Amino acid sequence: MDFNVILFDDFEVLDVFGPVEVMGKLPKHYDIKYYSQNGGLVTSKQDTRIDTLPFSRISHGGVLLIPGGMGTRTLVNDARFINEIRSIAEDSEYVLTVCTGSALLAKTGLLDYRNATTNKMAFNWVESNGANVKWDRDARWVVDGKYYTSAGVSAGLDMSLGFVADIHGLDVAMKITDYIEYDWNKNKRDDKFSHLAKSL
Amino acid sequence: MDFNVILFDDFEVLDVFGPVEVMGKLPKHYDIKYYSQNGGLVTSKQDTRIDTLPFSRISHGGVLLIPGGMGTRTLVNDARFINEIRSIAEDSEYVLTVCTGSALLAKTGLLDYRNATTNKMAFNWVESNGANVKWDRDARWVVDGKYYTSAGVSAGLDMSLGFVADIHGLDVAMKITDYIEYDWNKNKRDDKFSHLAKSL
Repeated sequence: MDFNVILFDDFEVLDVFGPVEVMGKLPKHYDIKYYSQNGGLVTSKQDTRIDTLPFSRISHGGVLLIPGGMGTRTLVNDARFINEIRSIAEDSEYVLTVCTGSALLAKTGLLDYRNATTNKMAFNWVESNGANVKWDRDARWVVDGKYYTSAGVSAGLDMSLGFVADIHGLDVAMKITDYIEYDWNKNKRDDKFSHLAKSL
Repeated sequence: MDFNVILFDDFEVLDVFGPVEVMGKLPKHYDIKYYSQNGGLVTSKQDTRIDTLPFSRISHGGVLLIPGGMGTRTLVNDARFINEIRSIAEDSEYVLTVCTGSALLAKTGLLDYRNATTNKMAFNWVESNGANVKWDRDARWVVDGKYYTSAGVSAGLDMSLGFVADIHGLDVAMKITDYIEYDWNKNKRDDKFSHLAKSL
């Protein structure tokens, strides 16, 4: 199955490479590919330049990863971009968002009346981009149907291990935590940073 | 100050983008740049293609980050590469390694008679590449002079937050943990994965 990562200028690197590190440990199951609206080099907030294919080349039926970052602040108002994301998300078997990537997905309407979460410090802004979404200020990550949404940045690591546990079993997820020496927060209801959203 | 990241084919993405995520939160202090031996696109183990400048363009006096990954297995035997790493490390104010990146640094001889650690599952292999290094199987990360070496993959996040705390103070490091919603393991002596090295 393809694991399709969507990139845009000013994305946040750990939002992408936490989940990519996890999914990269299952190369027999997932073929990781990187896409942007028009293809070519995309530059992260941290000045990383990454080579991508255009959205038009994304295969149907894969897993979609939408990261967050400052780039989302302008993209939520880019109707063409949001329409393209909607179409790709509809064609995907699963859709995973990290941090403010959920604002992009919320803007498509696909999260309407579903449970979701996002970056805790940016909670109010994300919420304003999805008035019909049932936003959860307490969760580390939320699963609703084919949609997995996580809290900020490093929460993408916890969510993607949760995704692996749901699909391939807890043993497989635990083996990956050994390989990447990561102390996984297994409980998606337990987020040590939820107070940041509550104090907004 | 420049934060110079060294890349090579088959590097491990989280080894790089854990520390880059942390250092990227201090843009007034660190200018993050990506280098490889000859410059151009470098491909990670996870098929990420990243644009780099050649080693010859690295400035003196920066912070050097050497990640690990399967690519290190052949590079430890590449005398020209190791000589270049030695010269860059000697010219750097600080040198940080993640995972098996410590094997590359050990091969230069610069870690001889110093304390260091590395990936726990690959401990024996790394040890064989630095017979004079005082390898520590228990540490999450080790500081010895200007050299910071960390355990596997996600340990790079803990080490780079430790580096920030050492240089800029604990408050700055804690603020970054809020921004990236990361539950930092502050204690460099406490590594939940040290049993993996002991069982080898």
